[in-house]
Amino acid sequence: MSKLWGGRFAQSPEEWVDEFNASIGFDQELVMEDLQGSIAHVTMLGECGILTADEVAQIQEGLAGLTEKAIKGELSFSVANEDIHLNLEHMLIQEIGQVGGKLHTGRSRNDQVATDMHLYLKKRVEEIQLLIRSVQKALLKQASEHIETVAPGYTHLQRAQPISFAHHLLAYFWMLERDYGRFEDSMKRIDLSPLGAGALAGTTFPIDRYRSAELLGFANIYENSMDAVSDRDFIIEFLSNASMTIMHLSRFAEEMIIWSSQEFQFIELADAFSTGSSIMPQKKNPDMAELVRGKTGRVFGHLMSLLTVLKGLPLAYNKDMQEDKEGMFDTVHTLLGSLKIFAGMVDTMKIKTERLEQAVNEDFSNATELADYLAAKGVPFRQAHEIVGKLVLACINKGIYLKDLSLDELQEAASVIEADIYEVLTPFQAVKRRESAGGTGFTQVKKQLDKAQEILSAVSVE
Amino acid sequence: MSKLWGGRFAQSPEEWVDEFNASIGFDQELVMEDLQGSIAHVTMLGECGILTADEVAQIQEGLAGLTEKAIKGELSFSVANEDIHLNLEHMLIQEIGQVGGKLHTGRSRNDQVATDMHLYLKKRVEEIQLLIRSVQKALLKQASEHIETVAPGYTHLQRAQPISFAHHLLAYFWMLERDYGRFEDSMKRIDLSPLGAGALAGTTFPIDRYRSAELLGFANIYENSMDAVSDRDFIIEFLSNASMTIMHLSRFAEEMIIWSSQEFQFIELADAFSTGSSIMPQKKNPDMAELVRGKTGRVFGHLMSLLTVLKGLPLAYNKDMQEDKEGMFDTVHTLLGSLKIFAGMVDTMKIKTERLEQAVNEDFSNATELADYLAAKGVPFRQAHEIVGKLVLACINKGIYLKDLSLDELQEAASVIEADIYEVLTPFQAVKRRESAGGTGFTQVKKQLDKAQEILSAVSVE
Amino acid sequence: MSKLWGGRFAQSPEEWVDEFNASIGFDQELVMEDLQGSIAHVTMLGECGILTADEVAQIQEGLAGLTEKAIKGELSFSVANEDIHLNLEHMLIQEIGQVGGKLHTGRSRNDQVATDMHLYLKKRVEEIQLLIRSVQKALLKQASEHIETVAPGYTHLQRAQPISFAHHLLAYFWMLERDYGRFEDSMKRIDLSPLGAGALAGTTFPIDRYRSAELLGFANIYENSMDAVSDRDFIIEFLSNASMTIMHLSRFAEEMIIWSSQEFQFIELADAFSTGSSIMPQKKNPDMAELVRGKTGRVFGHLMSLLTVLKGLPLAYNKDMQEDKEGMFDTVHTLLGSLKIFAGMVDTMKIKTERLEQAVNEDFSNATELADYLAAKGVPFRQAHEIVGKLVLACINKGIYLKDLSLDELQEAASVIEADIYEVLTPFQAVKRRESAGGTGFTQVKKQLDKAQEILSAVSVE
Amino acid sequence: MSKLWGGRFAQSPEEWVDEFNASIGFDQELVMEDLQGSIAHVTMLGECGILTADEVAQIQEGLAGLTEKAIKGELSFSVANEDIHLNLEHMLIQEIGQVGGKLHTGRSRNDQVATDMHLYLKKRVEEIQLLIRSVQKALLKQASEHIETVAPGYTHLQRAQPISFAHHLLAYFWMLERDYGRFEDSMKRIDLSPLGAGALAGTTFPIDRYRSAELLGFANIYENSMDAVSDRDFIIEFLSNASMTIMHLSRFAEEMIIWSSQEFQFIELADAFSTGSSIMPQKKNPDMAELVRGKTGRVFGHLMSLLTVLKGLPLAYNKDMQEDKEGMFDTVHTLLGSLKIFAGMVDTMKIKTERLEQAVNEDFSNATELADYLAAKGVPFRQAHEIVGKLVLACINKGIYLKDLSLDELQEAASVIEADIYEVLTPFQAVKRRESAGGTGFTQVKKQLDKAQEILSAVSVE
Repeated sequence: MSKLWGGRFAQSPEEWVDEFNASIGFDQELVMEDLQGSIAHVTMLGECGILTADEVAQIQEGLAGLTEKAIKGELSFSVANEDIHLNLEHMLIQEIGQVGGKLHTGRSRNDQVATDMHLYLKKRVEEIQLLIRSVQKALLKQASEHIETVAPGYTHLQRAQPISFAHHLLAYFWMLERDYGRFEDSMKRIDLSPLGAGALAGTTFPIDRYRSAELLGFANIYENSMDAVSDRDFIIEFLSNASMTIMHLSRFAEEMIIWSSQEFQFIELADAFSTGSSIMPQKKNPDMAELVRGKTGRVFGHLMSLLTVLKGLPLAYNKDMQEDKEGMFDTVHTLLGSLKIFAGMVDTMKIKTERLEQAVNEDFSNATELADYLAAKGVPFRQAHEIVGKLVLACINKGIYLKDLSLDELQEAASVIEADIYEVLTPFQAVKRRESAGGTGFTQVKKQLDKAQEILSAVSVE
Repeated sequence: MSKLWGGRFAQSPEEWVDEFNASIGFDQELVMEDLQGSIAHVTMLGECGILTADEVAQIQEGLAGLTEKAIKGELSFSVANEDIHLNLEHMLIQEIGQVGGKLHTGRSRNDQVATDMHLYLKKRVEEIQLLIRSVQKALLKQASEHIETVAPGYTHLQRAQPISFAHHLLAYFWMLERDYGRFEDSMKRIDLSPLGAGALAGTTFPIDRYRSAELLGFANIYENSMDAVSDRDFIIEFLSNASMTIMHLSRFAEEMIIWSSQEFQFIELADAFSTGSSIMPQKKNPDMAELVRGKTGRVFGHLMSLLTVLKGLPLAYNKDMQEDKEGMFDTVHTLLGSLKIFAGMVDTMKIKTERLEQAVNEDFSNATELADYLAAKGVPFRQAHEIVGKLVLACINKGIYLKDLSLDELQEAASVIEADIYEVLTPFQAVKRRESAGGTGFTQVKKQLDKAQEILSAVSVE
Repeated sequence: MSKLWGGRFAQSPEEWVDEFNASIGFDQELVMEDLQGSIAHVTMLGECGILTADEVAQIQEGLAGLTEKAIKGELSFSVANEDIHLNLEHMLIQEIGQVGGKLHTGRSRNDQVATDMHLYLKKRVEEIQLLIRSVQKALLKQASEHIETVAPGYTHLQRAQPISFAHHLLAYFWMLERDYGRFEDSMKRIDLSPLGAGALAGTTFPIDRYRSAELLGFANIYENSMDAVSDRDFIIEFLSNASMTIMHLSRFAEEMIIWSSQEFQFIELADAFSTGSSIMPQKKNPDMAELVRGKTGRVFGHLMSLLTVLKGLPLAYNKDMQEDKEGMFDTVHTLLGSLKIFAGMVDTMKIKTERLEQAVNEDFSNATELADYLAAKGVPFRQAHEIVGKLVLACINKGIYLKDLSLDELQEAASVIEADIYEVLTPFQAVKRRESAGGTGFTQVKKQLDKAQEILSAVSVE
Repeated sequence: MSKLWGGRFAQSPEEWVDEFNASIGFDQELVMEDLQGSIAHVTMLGECGILTADEVAQIQEGLAGLTEKAIKGELSFSVANEDIHLNLEHMLIQEIGQVGGKLHTGRSRNDQVATDMHLYLKKRVEEIQLLIRSVQKALLKQASEHIETVAPGYTHLQRAQPISFAHHLLAYFWMLERDYGRFEDSMKRIDLSPLGAGALAGTTFPIDRYRSAELLGFANIYENSMDAVSDRDFIIEFLSNASMTIMHLSRFAEEMIIWSSQEFQFIELADAFSTGSSIMPQKKNPDMAELVRGKTGRVFGHLMSLLTVLKGLPLAYNKDMQEDKEGMFDTVHTLLGSLKIFAGMVDTMKIKTERLEQAVNEDFSNATELADYLAAKGVPFRQAHEIVGKLVLACINKGIYLKDLSLDELQEAASVIEADIYEVLTPFQAVKRRESAGGTGFTQVKKQLDKAQEILSAVSVE
């Protein structure tokens, strides 16, 4: 098949080489963006007097027809035409004749594909942000119902100090809030038009890049045409932000998996987000949480992949850059899917309040209370820590907890201890008294919930 | 739709959750391996008296029917049946009735999928090894025609010393030879059967794992059933080996791209492996070389991805491990395609002998000759280096080369220099005299070619 | 040696285990930040009435003494005290007695180390931003001297269209400008105080986290104590931003290396940024550019490393997180060094104007001019492209350039061509006429330079 | 300071540039290998008549003196001399005068550094292999004591089927065995001498590369001098193998951490491998396990780093390759340390047999037994699975286990059930009956232990 760029060539590539080279297998995901970009471009060409009103009208009509077919899924693409751009141009020429060839005036595939990618990512990032809000909303719902649910708090997966379960859930709210912010910041670098940068040097046609940018809803244009066609920062930044977000989900997933074990039993995931085993009839596996945890690898891999592609690439466009697409598309789908799963999974998970409270009463996570109690009575903290450490060891050897020690025993260890210590040692009090800003004390958690609620409300007003 | 594992569940997942969970979209690539594994499994079940001859016959017939359809591409898979295993089992039961359910006796999806992956990779690695041989063969062809083609050798992309162009090409032969060896070594860990390991613990049925392994052509079985179903080392090792191979191709690609520039013009790639520009009619771009260089990122990414997935996963199977497939499939296709491209590209590239010889006569890459000449006459090498360095600087300032200095000028710098120096300074002599083992001297290069030829011959005898 | 946390333990670790566990070997880089954090903490404890004025005074004096010693490099750290925090606390107690133990009231190592990292990174990111400005300044200096230096512009490392060399240099200005912006955006997430979050749950002491944040110059505090001690987003975001910046430098480095080759000779790097060979006296290698290109791998590796560490970590602090430091420190030093090298290397590189102009006159990079000329005369662009492609092929076969074709020959190919074509084909005109916004036309490049200058001026006013 | 390669240069680098460029800060780790390489090289030069016996004697004596000082740690290196090679050469010349300059005859820093790295890695890989054996030995010790310790086996962190705890431990034995094998295979590519390859092209001196290789104990030499100096495969392969090994440790670490939680309490790590908290006196954290899990990221990062460095590097040596060292050194130390930790940690961990047996009696992990029982009685497996799934759900709703169902209830679900079912349902029987090859049945586990023992014995004989 004859190539649109074939004039200078004596010999054509073989078919399997064409297939290796072609991107149409995946870049057809950009079909709507490519048409949108072409419509804006030809409109601008007409307004600038580069094409006649009649030419513009014909091309517009042709593009409208292709758009309609694209929506209906009626376009069929060909490997011989390499990519989405040449495929659509070829179809356009078939539909409206040689005048279709004028669409490519004043632009190149290099700025065209960059434009498509910016349009695509702008739209997808907005969708991702909406789904982040959904997960945050589910977290708030659960948190608001579990402010006074006392649960063990962990460090090193060892019980550390009792906490409000709402406090634990809200930690994820703030992680996601930073993710949201990073995506928001990245828009400064996504929302830029490369259209009209040409192959690398701009064009001799009197085009108006600000106008085509405006037609496409872009906030600004690239200041340098070589940069415009060589830049893939915005995709790497997206992959970095996506890596962070799914890393957060992987941490939450790990906790859900651990909490769902028979040993913990802190939560029960809805049947709808669990699956069974082909061989073990009793199994109810937290597959969705595991799958999202696993998909973290995929997103990290895509990030590493594109960084590798761009390392050491000279200016301006190089074919290596065709490798920017599949990882981006897959990351978009992975992240959208994972967030949707989490929104549903968090919303429907059952938090086993009784089991949490039982757990927190049978451990040493109130040891800090005792140490703080001593410190408040004037014992230097390091000494207090030493005293309590020894009491814990003694209890373990006896198979009892701190609350089971008699006042005499306690006073023998530290004479400043009084009878009020038993109240201090209850997990509920331990949580309640942690009223430092951002702490797990119930009043603080309520304040935190209010702030979180405010953030979500602000959004829904928008 | 009712799940094969649904007995214990009160509520079914929604469709979009099913889609997120399902692997049938990509694991259908394993269809032939899954059928092959089932045929071996049921044969063994019969031989061990676990199923009756009649049951075995029915199942065999059903599987044969499915195999035939698979070859013709007539199977259509369903997301509701999750993966290739349940899809095929479902089809089998539809074809032959409830007896089909007995196929799953004594195995689990966990050992089944592992078996499929081992079968798949064993076959693909062999194909990759064959294609490595093709690229090596193309290298030998070109090298054998360019033994006495003198060319600049580079370090730091600066001309260093003249070399035989064959020597340069053969460096890639040995890189690929190591790649071949690594793939060969990896077979020890690919060629193992996990079949019969069950979900994680083996099975109570009196199966014969050695027999099913033998039927599948495996060299050995896994010694531990938990390891058998949890191990993905063989895939990571494959991804590591693939990363190395494509890294080698990326280095060669970089050189081809630089050599094809107008400034170098050392080679011309065939039209069949080049493409043009949509806007610049004069362009002939080394797209295939660039694309392979770019695809390096993709393979590195898949490696990083699977390492991330497995990091910190407890035994035995976890759903995260479903993420092992797409990266492996994509790496197989990428590497097969890239090697095929290179075999053709190397075979057809035109080496511009005249241009190389012209280049090597207009530089200072013979400076080492002069230093070695001095050292051979007793000047400590470090002093010789200093003397020559100063002569080079003087030449640059005058716009001449070392060979253009008069004998008087040379002797002024070092009195031991005699008239034979001019012969020593010719690039041809410079190459010829490097007769240390593995050096670029023509005799050495011929020996090297012979060794390389022997390796390829040994293979073709096989 | 007895541990500060040893009360509960019956048995001490062996020394080599201590060494594996200890972080003091690298976290001593945080010594100033740790002291700074402690001074703010104790001041706040005093203001809140948690410690007496006298206790505060003693601790302040002790900390002042340690700070003085730290500046003089007189502190010596011990592995037995694990990390910078316990080392300094131990020294404090040695200096001022048991009262020193009260410093740790109301905080934990978990919030303490997070505070140190935030303080550290805030300072370093500001230094990195300053050095980005230095490289940008050097680029502007060179660009402002080479606006009308016409040079070949490349895509696929093939000559594409002639460009202003200033335009090429400015492309890097804008890349660095985005890097600057990303670091600026990241400050929102660095400039937050975790101090007072305690081990994970906040504290029962009536501390004022807003006050200690204010004393440390932080813009805000973390809203959730569990998040405060578990969050390493700000470091990953830093590593992502650093990866992008050094990726940009690697692209520039690649171009400098290619441009320094004998075949290109577009630039000459200063001797001060080049090195020689131990064996080849003529060599002048662009070592610094190569080294920065190589160091790209290191930074990407650190990013991948920390993402891997955090994947799947449950809340709150886990020892794995100790692995956040070395990669961050190394990235800070690598990026500071690389930017400093580039500022000097760009500032001192000699651009070989004559060589560039000679190059651009001997190629087909004016082919687009001819195609655009035809398109402007009404030939559909796709046809124009075809016509020019064939002319180029004919010229190559004859060993001439487009400008060497006679008007007859040209008109035979396309009758609309007139005598003014020869002016159009000169590279200078080709550049000059690309006056689309952001294009390489001289007027546009001047505008671009003005915008860039404005950005730098705005900064220097600050 | 004057450079050894400074003859051609008009201007010296500034000190801070020197520091950026120098590798002496880290490559001094190669001091012994560099001296060893030089001793072999000069011996060979003498044997080949390139240096006189007297020259050789002087240089040998000088090198012996430096070796002695190196062992005592008395050498002090200088940044001005860039790297370990020039530092040692400089010292040699200071000790024995200009004749020291003759050591560099017939070699270059390019082959010298490659030689050092091969020597270094060969030694370190052997040490790593020994430590792998230590961990395997500790696993065997524990496993041999816990063959009949019945424990829950997990998939998806949900209880799946009861297993022998020895079986679980032995899974790690086989993972490490594969690691051992991969390191063994890699020796083919480490145990090669690049010495005498020169800068890239070999040398004109009549050296004997086979002889210097023999003196250094190398099995063979590189066949191609350009490959010899450009190859870093052996380091990447090492980093891949190390990544796999530490990934295995990370999985075991994760399990140890989970098993040490209060909820599981399956094991107790020795105090010597645990640490405490600065604020919570009761804490006993599995820090070593967490740290090794965290260090996984570091090793993955180093792998990604070197792959990135080499991507797209043209032949032969480029300065980028200096970046091969730090990651390799750090990986060697990390892996040695992690393996040593694991050997001790596994050896000393206390497996809580009673707790494991209690656990396994209170779950549904015997559900597969019931399904297999039904299948053995002729119920198609898929139906059996369905029946048992429903029984499990009924039990959960009643708060009982399968063994608590009456025979009537069981027979109602499936009439083929008889009284022998209660024996079948005991975890001990469930394990015992899994006698398929490699299964968890006690007889099988004993066989497995014997095979493992044999492997270790074979080694200790060596």
